[in-house]
Amino acid sequence: MFAPHDHALMAHALRLAAHGLATTRPNPRVGCVIARGDAIVGEGWHRRAGEPHAEVLALQAAGADARGATAYVTLEPCGLHGRTPPCADALVDAGVARVVIAAEDAAQRGGGGLERLRAAGIAVETGLMRDAARELNRGFFARVERNRPWLRLKLAMSLDGRTALAGGESKWITGEAARTDVQRWRARSCALLTGSGTVLADDPRLTVRLDDAPADAVGPLRVVLDSDLRTPRGAHVLDGCAPTLVLHAPGMRARDDRFAAVELAALERAGSGLDLGAALALLAARGMNEVQVEAGPTLGGALFAAGLVDELLLYVAPVLLGDDARALLALPPLACMADRARLRVHEQRMVGDDIRLLLRPAAD
Amino acid sequence: MFAPHDHALMAHALRLAAHGLATTRPNPRVGCVIARGDAIVGEGWHRRAGEPHAEVLALQAAGADARGATAYVTLEPCGLHGRTPPCADALVDAGVARVVIAAEDAAQRGGGGLERLRAAGIAVETGLMRDAARELNRGFFARVERNRPWLRLKLAMSLDGRTALAGGESKWITGEAARTDVQRWRARSCALLTGSGTVLADDPRLTVRLDDAPADAVGPLRVVLDSDLRTPRGAHVLDGCAPTLVLHAPGMRARDDRFAAVELAALERAGSGLDLGAALALLAARGMNEVQVEAGPTLGGALFAAGLVDELLLYVAPVLLGDDARALLALPPLACMADRARLRVHEQRMVGDDIRLLLRPAAD
Repeated sequence: MFAPHDHALMAHALRLAAHGLATTRPNPRVGCVIARGDAIVGEGWHRRAGEPHAEVLALQAAGADARGATAYVTLEPCGLHGRTPPCADALVDAGVARVVIAAEDAAQRGGGGLERLRAAGIAVETGLMRDAARELNRGFFARVERNRPWLRLKLAMSLDGRTALAGGESKWITGEAARTDVQRWRARSCALLTGSGTVLADDPRLTVRLDDAPADAVGPLRVVLDSDLRTPRGAHVLDGCAPTLVLHAPGMRARDDRFAAVELAALERAGSGLDLGAALALLAARGMNEVQVEAGPTLGGALFAAGLVDELLLYVAPVLLGDDARALLALPPLACMADRARLRVHEQRMVGDDIRLLLRPAAD
Repeated sequence: MFAPHDHALMAHALRLAAHGLATTRPNPRVGCVIARGDAIVGEGWHRRAGEPHAEVLALQAAGADARGATAYVTLEPCGLHGRTPPCADALVDAGVARVVIAAEDAAQRGGGGLERLRAAGIAVETGLMRDAARELNRGFFARVERNRPWLRLKLAMSLDGRTALAGGESKWITGEAARTDVQRWRARSCALLTGSGTVLADDPRLTVRLDDAPADAVGPLRVVLDSDLRTPRGAHVLDGCAPTLVLHAPGMRARDDRFAAVELAALERAGSGLDLGAALALLAARGMNEVQVEAGPTLGGALFAAGLVDELLLYVAPVLLGDDARALLALPPLACMADRARLRVHEQRMVGDDIRLLLRPAAD
């Protein structure tokens, strides 16, 4: 159905799209290639919300060569006026003969670019490298298709599943390469979520520290779940160095000005903390695609037990800390093995001397 | 120094040697290729103690073509009369011009095959693919060079480092592919070591169950550390289906005939169990090269804490059992992170849906 050069050109479009990993949010990462046969006549990728979409840039580059050409787009072109004119119209106006789309955009179902292109008589084919295209925008698809961000729980542990010594010491279980790698995952996240317990214990900065980050990267929103506003004065998350949202229980009020540099919002209580589902719905409503959780065993365990974790990013350091050390996740006790939470290894690799695992809940 | 065809031929000899993984013990696995230039004129591998060595078989296959040829041997040929005449003499008699040896045999240092070959005017070169050759016979080298077997600690755990539920249920954390894989590691072991606690809890058979095992495989010795002779009547390890050694504390005596089908031996007590160093010395004296430990967190932890573990064979199932479940290893509490036991990932791969890690203590 698709020719080998179709695959190669879509793969190229996907690589282009990935340039926007740290800059497009809340928009998806999109790449576009305009080709005549297997010869590229124009290409583009979306850099930043409010700036031109991938298709427009690729058409500009192709100029008159776009007429009769094929456009490869990693995501269904927009069909409605948003911050920019619809890309579907631009493709029609440029006279492209065929549009190959990797992934459909469920958010514009029924009235989207696909229908507009077809109505204009353009040959439209979808689904080429769809899995890879959806993977690139896991967060965007999660948000628009189920109104919840893609939740990645980042954890670092010893071989024997321990995150800290009994006394609390946890720096550094993993090596430098793994810690830099975490920064890369932060850079692609829309938000970094933590709990007040972690803030009190570790005082994380939750900013992106990468030498090679794009200058116009959009730093992730820091989100602190802090039911009782326990975050102490002087905590890094209150320093105003990055947009920060502190979620607290209704009726709680800051006793002083220590929250002056951040935004406060109330959320219902649930169990021993805040309503986690409501927290994620709030983040989705604010356009958060990928949310990375960097927290302790309590919040991590609660999110996991609530079925809200889409992905476990687990760094395993080849060290042993012993059965006296702190556990990875606090989970409700299991009555029998059949009740265990099953995951699937999505990817495994070495990062420096540590093992990096990417796991997702197994489809039962 | 070595030509490409030298590497290719030694690699072939190593592959031949590996055929003996489950049959040569207590002897090492050895392969031999006789070649003229890059053309193989004879090859052989050692199958079983008491049967011809690899060199003899390769020379037989080569016949007159051995004269002036090069012999590639994965281990230094023996220079002394053992159960068979020295292979060094056979190589000399056959008139080979050059012998390439992968790994030297420290057990015959000074009076071995190497000197004999050189004395006969044969060009001898050593060290080609030495690391791979030593890897193939880790256990043999450990035993002859330090009078202790190579100790492999096999463990299976959940992602969060748990081996069983709080109630003890542990079947099956890992999948079928991992369990079959364990059988392969058992097959290459000289002994399988466990503790009476594991016998009481799980009643393991500790035999090799593999469809494709060689018919003449030498099943591993089952070794049970059982200070107080607690192993119950009817336990699989007492069934006489495989040679079995039960080690107990001095002065302990079986109250009945339940140990009739196994061998008993006394060992000094140390700490809360038996003297583990003495146990391993005893196994080395009996020609045990690779010893695989399949036990619980207490024995595993004690061996690890005593620095006796050479290799951790760790299966990680992508499941979560929670902080209430049983820990991987019982280790002395750590005062600070700097004291943690460091390992090195020697190999990582997927086995079915599980992750298999092979780890060794890190050289500090």
